[in-house]
Amino acid sequence: MGLKKEEFDLESMDLPAALKDLSFEECRRLARQIRRTLITTVSKNGGHLSSNLGTVELTIALHRVFESPADKIVWDVGHQAYTHKLLTGRAGRFGTIRTEDGLSGFPRPDESEHDAFISGHSSTSVSAALGIAAAMKLKGDEHFTVAVLGDGALTGGESFEGLNNAGKSGTRLIIVLNYNEMSISKSVGATAKYLATLRTKDSYHKTKDAVENVLDRTPLVGQSIKKFVRSSKNAFKDMILHSTMFEDLGFEFVGPIDGHNIEELEKGLGAAKALECPTIVMVNTQKGHGYPPAEENPGGYHGVGAFDLSTGNPDVVPEDSWSAVFGRELVRLAHEDSRICAVTAAMKFGTGLQYFHKEIPDRFFDVGIAEQHAATFCGGLAAAGMIPVFAVYSTFLQRSYDQLLHDLAIMRVHAILGVDRAGIVGEDGETHQGLFDIPFLTTVPDITIYSPSNYRELELCLDKAVNEDKGLVAVRYPRGSESAELAEGEADTDMTCMTTEGARIAAVTYGRLFGELAKAREIAAERGFKFDIYKPVRIFPLSEELTERLKSYDKVYFFEECYGYGSIGEKYAARGVRCDRTAVHGFVPHGACGSLLDGLGLSAEKMAAKIMGRAENGKT
Amino acid sequence: MGLKKEEFDLESMDLPAALKDLSFEECRRLARQIRRTLITTVSKNGGHLSSNLGTVELTIALHRVFESPADKIVWDVGHQAYTHKLLTGRAGRFGTIRTEDGLSGFPRPDESEHDAFISGHSSTSVSAALGIAAAMKLKGDEHFTVAVLGDGALTGGESFEGLNNAGKSGTRLIIVLNYNEMSISKSVGATAKYLATLRTKDSYHKTKDAVENVLDRTPLVGQSIKKFVRSSKNAFKDMILHSTMFEDLGFEFVGPIDGHNIEELEKGLGAAKALECPTIVMVNTQKGHGYPPAEENPGGYHGVGAFDLSTGNPDVVPEDSWSAVFGRELVRLAHEDSRICAVTAAMKFGTGLQYFHKEIPDRFFDVGIAEQHAATFCGGLAAAGMIPVFAVYSTFLQRSYDQLLHDLAIMRVHAILGVDRAGIVGEDGETHQGLFDIPFLTTVPDITIYSPSNYRELELCLDKAVNEDKGLVAVRYPRGSESAELAEGEADTDMTCMTTEGARIAAVTYGRLFGELAKAREIAAERGFKFDIYKPVRIFPLSEELTERLKSYDKVYFFEECYGYGSIGEKYAARGVRCDRTAVHGFVPHGACGSLLDGLGLSAEKMAAKIMGRAENGKT
Repeated sequence: MGLKKEEFDLESMDLPAALKDLSFEECRRLARQIRRTLITTVSKNGGHLSSNLGTVELTIALHRVFESPADKIVWDVGHQAYTHKLLTGRAGRFGTIRTEDGLSGFPRPDESEHDAFISGHSSTSVSAALGIAAAMKLKGDEHFTVAVLGDGALTGGESFEGLNNAGKSGTRLIIVLNYNEMSISKSVGATAKYLATLRTKDSYHKTKDAVENVLDRTPLVGQSIKKFVRSSKNAFKDMILHSTMFEDLGFEFVGPIDGHNIEELEKGLGAAKALECPTIVMVNTQKGHGYPPAEENPGGYHGVGAFDLSTGNPDVVPEDSWSAVFGRELVRLAHEDSRICAVTAAMKFGTGLQYFHKEIPDRFFDVGIAEQHAATFCGGLAAAGMIPVFAVYSTFLQRSYDQLLHDLAIMRVHAILGVDRAGIVGEDGETHQGLFDIPFLTTVPDITIYSPSNYRELELCLDKAVNEDKGLVAVRYPRGSESAELAEGEADTDMTCMTTEGARIAAVTYGRLFGELAKAREIAAERGFKFDIYKPVRIFPLSEELTERLKSYDKVYFFEECYGYGSIGEKYAARGVRCDRTAVHGFVPHGACGSLLDGLGLSAEKMAAKIMGRAENGKT
Repeated sequence: MGLKKEEFDLESMDLPAALKDLSFEECRRLARQIRRTLITTVSKNGGHLSSNLGTVELTIALHRVFESPADKIVWDVGHQAYTHKLLTGRAGRFGTIRTEDGLSGFPRPDESEHDAFISGHSSTSVSAALGIAAAMKLKGDEHFTVAVLGDGALTGGESFEGLNNAGKSGTRLIIVLNYNEMSISKSVGATAKYLATLRTKDSYHKTKDAVENVLDRTPLVGQSIKKFVRSSKNAFKDMILHSTMFEDLGFEFVGPIDGHNIEELEKGLGAAKALECPTIVMVNTQKGHGYPPAEENPGGYHGVGAFDLSTGNPDVVPEDSWSAVFGRELVRLAHEDSRICAVTAAMKFGTGLQYFHKEIPDRFFDVGIAEQHAATFCGGLAAAGMIPVFAVYSTFLQRSYDQLLHDLAIMRVHAILGVDRAGIVGEDGETHQGLFDIPFLTTVPDITIYSPSNYRELELCLDKAVNEDKGLVAVRYPRGSESAELAEGEADTDMTCMTTEGARIAAVTYGRLFGELAKAREIAAERGFKFDIYKPVRIFPLSEELTERLKSYDKVYFFEECYGYGSIGEKYAARGVRCDRTAVHGFVPHGACGSLLDGLGLSAEKMAAKIMGRAENGKT
């Protein structure tokens, strides 16, 4: 790797154990080195930079205070765990992060014994860590379990379910609440406001009487925590602050601690450890800490404004993207109909709803990472006469499944789901692939599902979903941009057919794969092999017409970027269309989108080969 | 109805408007009359008695203070809304509650304009009410929206997601937190502990200094609330108590109020109304209040112990039931293997886990109404080497869908789901039917699903799931008891076949429907008509052997107590088994189980008629 003078050789060090031998000065030097690595690597491979820059010192301190893998560290969402990967034997492979067959961008137990639990969806860490801690308690294992979560994860109800159970668990569970100011906004809700109060120095205006009153009712705690709290600069303030919501929930509370000061972090984490009971350690960090452009121009840095509320997700869609087209068309429709409302679960920029927020703020709702609430909230809006449109990533919509059935479908209200990132998403990997929306949405009675192939179709489908359809309607579209070929194609909300006189073979697909299948048809044509293409746009309910037409062919092929059980092809097959189906079986790891699709038998070349009978990839 | 002297004629009164003309004394008399009606009706029709007895005065006060249907009342879970039904024009039909074509046991907007939103699953009311309130705000409608939820509903994360968004919403949303002590137990978690502190008088030990300190930071509120709070007996206490968690979440707080005192309730609700902003009104009620047996023998009443934690669900399964068999077998297995843990989401008695709790309390976890947490928690337990078994109703497992994928399937850990109440459940109706578990569970990669037909099979399947299978395994079984015929049948974990020489027709089913299909075979045999029966027990993954055998018949029929899209028959059909499938399409309302199954074409008679070709019911 060409280490510079004074740089640590992370590949040959015995990590994480060797961290304990470093002086604080060496730790700070290590932190600077790690920041350089993060910036270099993320600038090449993509990923979450600022959240990882925020947790460098915290990660070093965690591995100095705890004994991973005997002590278990569970990272919420996991896009803050890059330093953890560097410090647990994966420095040599770090340059491969998020690339095919390389390191995952999220913790994966099958990648390292130091990754105690998988994470990709938010707000699971307290529950997972509590499970691990409870198991350790049952086994008489006295090691600790540490969950690290950001304030954004607290907007998800599952975090609260976990906290509600953890406080009384009697386990050695430590919850590090990583509060980073950049992800906080008034609009992520009441918890954020509350946390901001905890953090803000100006709010410290208590009297000495009040402090002593609080001291009187402070529960008996270990000596080390008392000592730590008393020695801190803001002892009085800390004592007051910790006697609040989290203590009400049954936790001991340590903090807030400067999350970029390794000495303070070690004292705080050490104090939590000494308590040997469920404890929350609140750590203040700064997203992007130590990033030179940000330091030189902090105003401009903060002004980027491109972080999604509560997630801090830098996933801002470009103007030329499915999400942006969706967002702009929704604004146009909403100007025409004052009943239309837009709802997002902390993905305003990711789903292209920033246009709506800017132009029609009254009817825009960012509910935080709260997909259950979002769906039921849409049910309430619709019951009162509005037309809610919930824009959400396919993989996160999995969280709303019960609410789609219970609060939208049974209610028989009109509501629209903008299902973004449907299909293979690429580098984010198996926790983020949008492969299940068709299988689970088709189990919701009376739903209508569209899967447009180009921007114009997306606009037409959204228009129809809002203005003509009834009940629950989903419009699904992939990550990224439309392909150039498809931009010039027909646009329909029902079905497109490409037929040739005398063809006895038909192939069916929908969404962006239509581009690949059209190319496959050209490849086949060059070899004198002809087949017809049917591309439903309204993919569900099934089309009687399509069923009958497909039955007239000698052979039918389905190609879907979707899990096989519950796929559209399976449903046509069950209705008598004899067909060969290429769909996805199992989870799909991270990698480049095109390469993953090819591996699944869903590239033009693989489709052509399949139809011409020269390959067996992905056969159902 | 034969009204007694002095009884109110609820059928002819102009309700709920006429309530406002009653004196407090008349209200109390009305409350007594309603209690008699509740007790009489529930003793006949079944349903939730104690939760409804607890909300009689609260409901009267709500309809005196608010103007339903212009003001919207959203009942959480909804099994506390019987008085609401009596007071909103449904007294005449109240005797039909929970019977086929009669009133629903839950609020239903299509039953009355006074039912603002459906509810059957817990913890949705804040989100639904916030949606309604936000819509009203957008429309300039100044009416109020009131959500009424019990403390049990607060253990569900969606409530917290709703609260997190409601506090800052600027709507006229009032949340009535109906705290009823009987449903509270230490084991439902930290929130319960916190609420108990709020309620307990002994915890009032604050000094005057502290009170004034709190007063200083109390936000400016309407005069009426100040007046109300000041005139209450415990003004100081109230002022202290309300400066806590809920205020941290951004709400005004009124209470606690005696929920059986109509005057106090009206003052409190009126104060909340005067605030014109998101407000929580905490009301203390007693479950079963006014029920003579409870009043005469309160010790015995409390001692019944038959209320599930946090739900207060009286749904205690009898010894002779699928749930109890499951619970006892799990205890037996857990005595043999110390890794086995039992997890329930507030349904200890409903799922037969009371045996486990009694015998092996260390490995028993009741997490409250928190199905998301429960699944991820199981992932944590399993990752740390335990074998978690999550017993849960089919309909509530819908809440765990994302976690099944993300925290169990991707983690590739070994965990077992005991899917109780799978299939038609009867009187609880469309929000509770277990029709979707097969459709959504089969979309989870690598899952194994069993559907036993008799108790012995359930035991064998559970044994195999725990001791032999890998990964995620679901064992699903219905509400109620095994039928006598099936008790003597074979027990297998793979498949049972009933064949006759020369039969050219086959019928396939699984689970309890096997009993009906076997009867159908006898009916047919009496008329000289023969068919073979195949009953897979391990219903997923699909059986290659079954596929091949079915293909050899002239005609195949599938009968399933399951939603059609995603059903097992659909999957066999997609794999080339030409078959006629009888499954469920759409939601199924409440009614007697046998009658509902008959209506769906799933009784012995209907199956026989279908196979013999003399009926077209339920044809796919």
